[in-house]
Amino acid sequence: MSAHTARVRVRYAETDQMGVVYHANYIVWMEVGRVELCRARGIAYKDIEQRAGIRLAVIEASCRYVAPARYDDEVDIETSIVKATPRGVEFGYIMRHGTSGQLLAEGRTRHLFLGHDLRPTKLPPAFHGQFAIA
Amino acid sequence: MSAHTARVRVRYAETDQMGVVYHANYIVWMEVGRVELCRARGIAYKDIEQRAGIRLAVIEASCRYVAPARYDDEVDIETSIVKATPRGVEFGYIMRHGTSGQLLAEGRTRHLFLGHDLRPTKLPPAFHGQFAIA
Amino acid sequence: MSAHTARVRVRYAETDQMGVVYHANYIVWMEVGRVELCRARGIAYKDIEQRAGIRLAVIEASCRYVAPARYDDEVDIETSIVKATPRGVEFGYIMRHGTSGQLLAEGRTRHLFLGHDLRPTKLPPAFHGQFAIA
Amino acid sequence: MSAHTARVRVRYAETDQMGVVYHANYIVWMEVGRVELCRARGIAYKDIEQRAGIRLAVIEASCRYVAPARYDDEVDIETSIVKATPRGVEFGYIMRHGTSGQLLAEGRTRHLFLGHDLRPTKLPPAFHGQFAIA
Repeated sequence: MSAHTARVRVRYAETDQMGVVYHANYIVWMEVGRVELCRARGIAYKDIEQRAGIRLAVIEASCRYVAPARYDDEVDIETSIVKATPRGVEFGYIMRHGTSGQLLAEGRTRHLFLGHDLRPTKLPPAFHGQFAIA
Repeated sequence: MSAHTARVRVRYAETDQMGVVYHANYIVWMEVGRVELCRARGIAYKDIEQRAGIRLAVIEASCRYVAPARYDDEVDIETSIVKATPRGVEFGYIMRHGTSGQLLAEGRTRHLFLGHDLRPTKLPPAFHGQFAIA
Repeated sequence: MSAHTARVRVRYAETDQMGVVYHANYIVWMEVGRVELCRARGIAYKDIEQRAGIRLAVIEASCRYVAPARYDDEVDIETSIVKATPRGVEFGYIMRHGTSGQLLAEGRTRHLFLGHDLRPTKLPPAFHGQFAIA
Repeated sequence: MSAHTARVRVRYAETDQMGVVYHANYIVWMEVGRVELCRARGIAYKDIEQRAGIRLAVIEASCRYVAPARYDDEVDIETSIVKATPRGVEFGYIMRHGTSGQLLAEGRTRHLFLGHDLRPTKLPPAFHGQFAIA
């Protein structure tokens, strides 16, 4: 399964007084990465939510910070699906400096599919292909 | 009508690389101010939303920045209702440094009451008292 | 003086439980708009800060909300310089839905040039051209 | 070594369109937790930064989400020092619903002490006591 790379540019709002990107923002960038991975595979998060009534709730998130991103840097977020079942998905992220390619951070998020009632549910088969669920 | 003062402490996440609080965060603090003003008057935003199905949508927000707040500062947000009708409310905010009392910023927000369909509606009379609507 | 249009895509992180974009985020988008306006004119905020030691501090921000942006929408931020002097700059913003062109919000920010000491200063003449200061 | 509990109230800004707190915000709350733990031990982050020129950079953060926090909920963040050396610190966090005591999330952050040059350094012995470094 191929990975997908999305790009963000660091906003002033995302920096902190240490002069680098505040660490929680990498978790937000991971969201950008997985949304764009889904879009590249022909499916929008928005559609899963609105048409299938399924939400992809985060049950675990982690990030290892290697080098700081700075204001106005472009950051590439390479996102891949580590594991997918009808119950949930695990995404992996490698974030690099857009120009130098320097590794900035690596992360993982684990998700469960939830129904309208916010209880665990199975992803409808119609969407299995996009997540490469066998 | 009396004003109400809420206090926040500046989070590292709220600073930017200029070493001061990023300006959009004052708009978030205004939210804290008006929620606490409502609470002090015996009503929770949450109840208006959940029980009456009314949302208080922001239609205008402005802030004038006088002096910067810094990391770990305590900031007092004095909130008052400038004007209230069954159609909407206008809040005013004066933000001061918690220790020195120095003026940091002044702001205004204007709101419309919206129904479940996110269209303008009138606030039910049961809630008029809390907003001092005659 | 021509305006410049930047585009952002609404992040899940930027929505709130009303199902629309939280209002303070439009203030952040305005930052994206003016940074990209500056870049289009051949100057990066980062350079003004790092090379000239000048910061462009916000002294006033306002936004009028017309229609809500929603998750995954593309939003176009048309930014123009309303007024510029060696002391400061005023930017104007018109935010529209990227697909439909519907007006979402209009805003203004006023800025002062500050030196390293965070006190008002004059923008060095070398940068006047980019801001169209006569 | 005793833990310390800080309390935050969920802001509207922190919710997302799923109607719960957006997951990256728990990472911000952990910051609140460790800052208050330090304060309770007689030391302010701000002082470490300003007086000793030491920054406590995050090199790893993780969170396991158990139950969602919702708008206006009070959330208790129980923070403890899992491990501390002159090189760095690891904090652990248990987040519970303030009223019901329900477990919401558990997290960890690992930090390195950095000098003014943002390179690893050793925490001056004067601060060892606060972190219970032997």
